[in-house]
Amino acid sequence: MPLPLSDSDAVTITGMSDPQSRPPLELTSTSNPRIKALIGLRRRRAREQAGVSLVEGYEELVLALDAGVVPQSLYYCPALMSTSDQLDTVDRVSALGTTVFRLSRPVFEKAAYRESPDGWLAVVPAVPTGLAELRIAANPLLLVGEAVEKPGNLGAMLRTADAVGVDAVIASQPVTDWGNPNVVRASKGTIFTVPVASAPTAEVLPWLRDRAVSVVAATPDTDTEYTDVDFTGPTAVVVGTEKHGLTDEWLDRADARVRIPMLGRVNSLNVATSAAIILYEALRQRRP
Amino acid sequence: MPLPLSDSDAVTITGMSDPQSRPPLELTSTSNPRIKALIGLRRRRAREQAGVSLVEGYEELVLALDAGVVPQSLYYCPALMSTSDQLDTVDRVSALGTTVFRLSRPVFEKAAYRESPDGWLAVVPAVPTGLAELRIAANPLLLVGEAVEKPGNLGAMLRTADAVGVDAVIASQPVTDWGNPNVVRASKGTIFTVPVASAPTAEVLPWLRDRAVSVVAATPDTDTEYTDVDFTGPTAVVVGTEKHGLTDEWLDRADARVRIPMLGRVNSLNVATSAAIILYEALRQRRP
Repeated sequence: MPLPLSDSDAVTITGMSDPQSRPPLELTSTSNPRIKALIGLRRRRAREQAGVSLVEGYEELVLALDAGVVPQSLYYCPALMSTSDQLDTVDRVSALGTTVFRLSRPVFEKAAYRESPDGWLAVVPAVPTGLAELRIAANPLLLVGEAVEKPGNLGAMLRTADAVGVDAVIASQPVTDWGNPNVVRASKGTIFTVPVASAPTAEVLPWLRDRAVSVVAATPDTDTEYTDVDFTGPTAVVVGTEKHGLTDEWLDRADARVRIPMLGRVNSLNVATSAAIILYEALRQRRP
Repeated sequence: MPLPLSDSDAVTITGMSDPQSRPPLELTSTSNPRIKALIGLRRRRAREQAGVSLVEGYEELVLALDAGVVPQSLYYCPALMSTSDQLDTVDRVSALGTTVFRLSRPVFEKAAYRESPDGWLAVVPAVPTGLAELRIAANPLLLVGEAVEKPGNLGAMLRTADAVGVDAVIASQPVTDWGNPNVVRASKGTIFTVPVASAPTAEVLPWLRDRAVSVVAATPDTDTEYTDVDFTGPTAVVVGTEKHGLTDEWLDRADARVRIPMLGRVNSLNVATSAAIILYEALRQRRP
């Protein structure tokens, strides 16, 4: 039985003409086992065991849906939404067969990981991250990040990869999992549009070699500038962490080492910025 | 009289052979008026009235010092430092005539704005931000950001500007002040190496026109790609916010409107990423 709405829940709910299509479940207790399990999914291990990721935020959810993602469950809270127009998306998700729950505001705020939640949280199947499952084009452009840790940087790298039309982004020696909610968020949903993989460097290197992909490693320790190499063939652009750069495992096997010229006082750019500069040069060379 | 050190303060203090050069002031009370005033500087208004910025973090402080900044005061806490080698920097700052205070750990943690402070906090003169004071080269490359709000983006733009050797970064219709501690931090100290200015767009436009600087405005609403324009003359690259893009005030007066090709599903890049892609193309064209 639906519980009475509080004042703050009293938004106009549109698109609910057929009550059969969306059961009016509302969860109002944080001790509900389903809410407890949802909160548990903040932990990487729990996500991996369940094979799921969390998508929080309206914009990110719509991008995931547009990319063909079918959520396992959706949690929403009208009182937190900026506009009731968004509620049409509840019907869109229900129509996919997803179980949908309306949460009271206190419960949603407890379940959300954002500081200012916007009333949307979905549990979705984890994106596949196996190297063996990656399908790439005949003349691929790939981005490899070694041991990149900050979710914001991984997300920014995905956004750029989406924009450039990169075939896949590969995490070698991964520190942060692709299902990290902050990666999903920073990626603005592009985690669902760009194929990704995670694998030890010792597996990524032969995988690239088997596919005749040229390895272009970014490092300050070379005289070759990134604009001086040919990106028109099958290419993997490889970037390391800001702090430590790429390991010798990559540098020793690279077909080319390239540097981004830096004329100022500081000797490093943000890793996602470096990736964007090199990938857009690759795109410039590869476009007709 | 110096207060007894707690166990956690018991690091080896090097470079203190001459006690006369650095009075062993230690502040141990958060009700100390100096600490109260320091905490007050988190507010923009207080910083502007005092004409100062805050620099927190060892790496950022060293960059500021390397750029010639003379702090007004320095607060440090050996117990929070990763290595006592850093303490040489206390002598370096003392030698500039700066007043230096050692803080107890609880006091430093109260005064710091970072969540995990590293034991270094300095009050430095605010960088000049007047448009009239900007001195630029004969064939300048400039970056203009309209209404960019996020300190992280402003800081990243400064890092790129430093690397590219941009003459100045101008905030038109500024939302966030250049002295914001998070801008200083995200800039990794480049706020002290790259000239900056803040001014209303109505002042920036004639300032650029008077100097025959060509305005290249980034917008998705054009067919001209950023690689198709000539950046070899005096040029200002102008970027707007991710959410709203540039206003017509800029778009209508631009000499060229350029887009960054985006082949994916998402239609915007991070503003700092966009600036980096265009500025590095400008650098590519301008280098011999």
